[in-house]
Amino acid sequence: MIFASDNWAGAHPAIAENLAAHASGYVSAYGMSELDRKLERRFLEIFEKEVAVFFVGTGTAANSLALASANRPGGVVFCHREAHVHVDECGAPEFFSHGARLCPVDGERGKMDAARLEAEIRRFPPGFVHGGQPMAVTMTQATESGTIYSLDEIETIAAIAQAHNLPLHMDGARFANALVGLGVTPAEMTWKSGIDLLSFGGTKNGCWCAEAVVLFDPAKALEMHFLRKRAAQLFSKSRFVAAQFEAYFAGDLWLDLARHANAMAARLAAGIAASESSRLAWDAEANEVFAIMKREVATGLQRQGAVFYDWHVPHHLAGSLAEDEDLYRLVTSFATKSEDVDRFVAAC
Amino acid sequence: MIFASDNWAGAHPAIAENLAAHASGYVSAYGMSELDRKLERRFLEIFEKEVAVFFVGTGTAANSLALASANRPGGVVFCHREAHVHVDECGAPEFFSHGARLCPVDGERGKMDAARLEAEIRRFPPGFVHGGQPMAVTMTQATESGTIYSLDEIETIAAIAQAHNLPLHMDGARFANALVGLGVTPAEMTWKSGIDLLSFGGTKNGCWCAEAVVLFDPAKALEMHFLRKRAAQLFSKSRFVAAQFEAYFAGDLWLDLARHANAMAARLAAGIAASESSRLAWDAEANEVFAIMKREVATGLQRQGAVFYDWHVPHHLAGSLAEDEDLYRLVTSFATKSEDVDRFVAAC
Amino acid sequence: MIFASDNWAGAHPAIAENLAAHASGYVSAYGMSELDRKLERRFLEIFEKEVAVFFVGTGTAANSLALASANRPGGVVFCHREAHVHVDECGAPEFFSHGARLCPVDGERGKMDAARLEAEIRRFPPGFVHGGQPMAVTMTQATESGTIYSLDEIETIAAIAQAHNLPLHMDGARFANALVGLGVTPAEMTWKSGIDLLSFGGTKNGCWCAEAVVLFDPAKALEMHFLRKRAAQLFSKSRFVAAQFEAYFAGDLWLDLARHANAMAARLAAGIAASESSRLAWDAEANEVFAIMKREVATGLQRQGAVFYDWHVPHHLAGSLAEDEDLYRLVTSFATKSEDVDRFVAAC
Amino acid sequence: MIFASDNWAGAHPAIAENLAAHASGYVSAYGMSELDRKLERRFLEIFEKEVAVFFVGTGTAANSLALASANRPGGVVFCHREAHVHVDECGAPEFFSHGARLCPVDGERGKMDAARLEAEIRRFPPGFVHGGQPMAVTMTQATESGTIYSLDEIETIAAIAQAHNLPLHMDGARFANALVGLGVTPAEMTWKSGIDLLSFGGTKNGCWCAEAVVLFDPAKALEMHFLRKRAAQLFSKSRFVAAQFEAYFAGDLWLDLARHANAMAARLAAGIAASESSRLAWDAEANEVFAIMKREVATGLQRQGAVFYDWHVPHHLAGSLAEDEDLYRLVTSFATKSEDVDRFVAAC
Repeated sequence: MIFASDNWAGAHPAIAENLAAHASGYVSAYGMSELDRKLERRFLEIFEKEVAVFFVGTGTAANSLALASANRPGGVVFCHREAHVHVDECGAPEFFSHGARLCPVDGERGKMDAARLEAEIRRFPPGFVHGGQPMAVTMTQATESGTIYSLDEIETIAAIAQAHNLPLHMDGARFANALVGLGVTPAEMTWKSGIDLLSFGGTKNGCWCAEAVVLFDPAKALEMHFLRKRAAQLFSKSRFVAAQFEAYFAGDLWLDLARHANAMAARLAAGIAASESSRLAWDAEANEVFAIMKREVATGLQRQGAVFYDWHVPHHLAGSLAEDEDLYRLVTSFATKSEDVDRFVAAC
Repeated sequence: MIFASDNWAGAHPAIAENLAAHASGYVSAYGMSELDRKLERRFLEIFEKEVAVFFVGTGTAANSLALASANRPGGVVFCHREAHVHVDECGAPEFFSHGARLCPVDGERGKMDAARLEAEIRRFPPGFVHGGQPMAVTMTQATESGTIYSLDEIETIAAIAQAHNLPLHMDGARFANALVGLGVTPAEMTWKSGIDLLSFGGTKNGCWCAEAVVLFDPAKALEMHFLRKRAAQLFSKSRFVAAQFEAYFAGDLWLDLARHANAMAARLAAGIAASESSRLAWDAEANEVFAIMKREVATGLQRQGAVFYDWHVPHHLAGSLAEDEDLYRLVTSFATKSEDVDRFVAAC
Repeated sequence: MIFASDNWAGAHPAIAENLAAHASGYVSAYGMSELDRKLERRFLEIFEKEVAVFFVGTGTAANSLALASANRPGGVVFCHREAHVHVDECGAPEFFSHGARLCPVDGERGKMDAARLEAEIRRFPPGFVHGGQPMAVTMTQATESGTIYSLDEIETIAAIAQAHNLPLHMDGARFANALVGLGVTPAEMTWKSGIDLLSFGGTKNGCWCAEAVVLFDPAKALEMHFLRKRAAQLFSKSRFVAAQFEAYFAGDLWLDLARHANAMAARLAAGIAASESSRLAWDAEANEVFAIMKREVATGLQRQGAVFYDWHVPHHLAGSLAEDEDLYRLVTSFATKSEDVDRFVAAC
Repeated sequence: MIFASDNWAGAHPAIAENLAAHASGYVSAYGMSELDRKLERRFLEIFEKEVAVFFVGTGTAANSLALASANRPGGVVFCHREAHVHVDECGAPEFFSHGARLCPVDGERGKMDAARLEAEIRRFPPGFVHGGQPMAVTMTQATESGTIYSLDEIETIAAIAQAHNLPLHMDGARFANALVGLGVTPAEMTWKSGIDLLSFGGTKNGCWCAEAVVLFDPAKALEMHFLRKRAAQLFSKSRFVAAQFEAYFAGDLWLDLARHANAMAARLAAGIAASESSRLAWDAEANEVFAIMKREVATGLQRQGAVFYDWHVPHHLAGSLAEDEDLYRLVTSFATKSEDVDRFVAAC
């Protein structure tokens, strides 16, 4: 009953096997191998567009490099207050952008409120040097709250970013979970909706270590080559990332894995909603469930071996929890078993 | 006949298999798993000392973070002119150290000349703000020229660094090749000889992507945790590095792989030394052979499928090459086959 | 009727004259002249302690360098939400600290609320790498809201900073105004109350360009020499700063100038408090008056030549302004004339 | 007999007086005053072109910001080995450019050798990520060796920079000395010869603290506003710089001051050339004289109160000094008196 995080799982067998299958033989290093090139082309097919693709080692690296490509002196990046870049990356985005600032934007259930985003951007009038200058907008899809921006919502954010001439970045650490949740194509969820820069995550969905920065404007690729190398993110044996992605995409494995993770979350959510002692804080749309549980129930589950974390209570929920209740996050993954879900539900 | 670089090889089968063996099951993320901890302890045994170990993704990251831990404003790092940090890392060491400068030190066959190192350091008198201030010394073992510093030579460099109160870093991208070349222990080649910071490389010697920063003063570990995370080098599924190191160290596989690579280089060197058309530029001490060959011989070999690079001619060789000759670098690895070496030798 | 800012004034005649008096003759450059040394010693007398003093060109430089001296990877600086470092320095503090983050702390009338400060610091548990790590606390004295922290309030903040092992910085852009407002000594308002680092401002109080970083622990001076030089803040003809400070301190001119500015603010505040159409937003404690005025009154005054800015309405005032009212900031200086104050009051 | 440096002098009386004349009254802060604007326009007249002008506090700031405006990840700046940016700025250019590297180019008498510059740039092939990428070329005029690039020489360097698509920066700390030395116009010595970015220095030639970054492509001005502010180089009472420049330019004072300094250097050089015990290392073209003197003569002069520094002996002079000789630098300024020159000459 491990619901701590989707990165507590290891690698899917097909991905592990493909790594082993590519272990022998010599190929060009530093991303110049046939396999690297093949997988880069695979991204073009998946996104139905010429894109520039850069394999990197962590989601933090992908986010930080994507934002660094938009760097301006005194730059300000607008993100949700609970965004991974804002609360979980130890200042990496600021470091890679030479001191750019992250400006938190509020909004319920992990989504930036469009009006608030607009208001925050307007606090930095063009050319006014004292406060700094807007540099980029970043949104997480699926969000850190397990919700998903609809295409309409992405377009609304994109329109604001475009009106202020700001590139729009998507942190897609859980890109596949959002994609199958919405039932749209990768192109629709990104550049067709106004996304300029993407962190494409494979790690949380069954890879060991496979992340990519995707630039929808390939004209900006040259600088990113140097940004990535200078950031120590160009792997010599880069094919080990490419091999993971090869298996990840083969036969749409990635979509199947995400569908499984989302289905497990839905099953968990349904069980919690139906339980007597617990309830959902809000609907689970991807592979994360946020539940309000009595503390003693949670503790009992943890004693039975369940692993999951309590979560800070967002403003809009304040007041709706009883004294003996708390908010908890439960994350499912490609590796989650329905038996574990059912055991959890039975005990809560 | 691939002698382009040791990072053109993939992963040793035992390492690939161990990755697959650890693919299933849930473990704590971000370096907190049992396996991560077990491998950290393994480093303590190997180095016979309490050390702090930080897994990272690339040698450039290991070097840059190790040097960043010594950061000073206006800092100057002393390295060999041909050091990897100086010529092959796209400014990553400078970036991670906020603009520190690399000061090249000359010396034959890839080794810093001790007297020149001393002279370069003295160009930055303590407290004189205009020129900047010394910050660290870094040496590569085995060197980029395929040579190995003896323990005496390391101690000589270390004495200079200590006299100026500078930490001494070793870029051990080819640590194992040097170790078996010298026939000493890891402790002897590092802290017992005065090394403070180590980039411990596994990738070039049979891993996919397994590097570590080793701090011989564990009191400095806390800052490195934040440096690594801010540098986007903390892997969520960190066990994929630990699993590689587990197989790498098991039964001293790492030493066997390095011995093989060095033996292949020795075989290649012997063949070249005995050939009529080619000769060694200098002795091969680890797994790199530098050969002076007629250009037409080299071209002929390349037409037959051999892959290797020509190399810039260092000052001390200038004048000793004939018009129709050039300098070439040939690198062997754990995966080099003696048949390939023999075919190469036969043709040169 | 210029109440736009205290930096709209020029230089006090005594300071301008002293600059001219030192214009001829040769002295050592880069802060090594007799005059530089003399003024450094003057700071020791003023603060009754061995301190390290570094002349710089702007308040932003002083703040950024002071905070940079406390730099940590992933560092977080705690400041009031309306602090100059947070809203008016274009990311300079973050840039000089290599991407450190400013964490805003709320509190009424420009002062950090101690309980909120404690709560914000606690959001970054020691050793937890994901969120970053606390690095310093900074407070502005007098505040950007024209209020003054009492010695007790400083000590309360200092106790929190010390409990978390964080240096406490004071942005003293209006140091003299606070000092005469409290009627205490420089030592009492700084190191005796727990301040570790000070930005000592002379510019707003009658100098052209005279700011200093003061380190109350002189052991940390060596690094600051390099930080300042690397930041391009070491003036070759440094005596032009020293000469300003010489006149500034002579006969306690600096205290007289601050007393005058504060008295003008008090006169202005009293007039506004007594007026029919306007009222004080809160008491003026230093040289800034925050007034709630009918927009048409403000516009009328501006038409008569008064220069002053409207101000964003802080949360605690929201709801207390009428539809036709707005909040305005009025700043007095060493150069403010009582006739101008009286003309303003008569018209409002 | 102070020949230590031109920055040992203070300010010219006309400049000191103009500062005092502008001390009273209120004007807009942060470079928005009438006087600031007037002086910016003055630069347009002087350079016969629309340019963007940014007042800053130090030459190091001007150089670092000009180069930062050309910033690229992994960037490499080409400069003479003895350039001020390379040996005297404590890493400020690297810091402001986020870790860019300075690549020293050799050349006699302080001037980059064009062929060597070309060769150094070619070491960084376009798109090859490992070594970094060229970012800018910077030249000092007059040079640190007291020589002056002719217009032809500037154009030769500019042609190389342009061929590689690199902006060309001129460090004009002694701009006026070079200008009157060549007898050309500011336009001819800069943009008409291919200069893109200029550090325009006033401090060494009679100002207290008056430097400017001049961008010959005003389209790049917006970013520089933020670069300057983030670098803590935007003065609140910016008119104190403008007032210095006002007097500096009035009646071509700046050219007269430079002519005087150069004439004093020529007088000194002629005296040394005619002396028995000393000789010129090379011709003095601006306001610096490099003399080879017997050490005992130099010491004798110093005992009589002369202040000047010995200098490192460049490669091309090695071997041409006798055992008892050394190389010395003598700098004249606007304030140098012919009596002092004559006394020096008489004693050497």
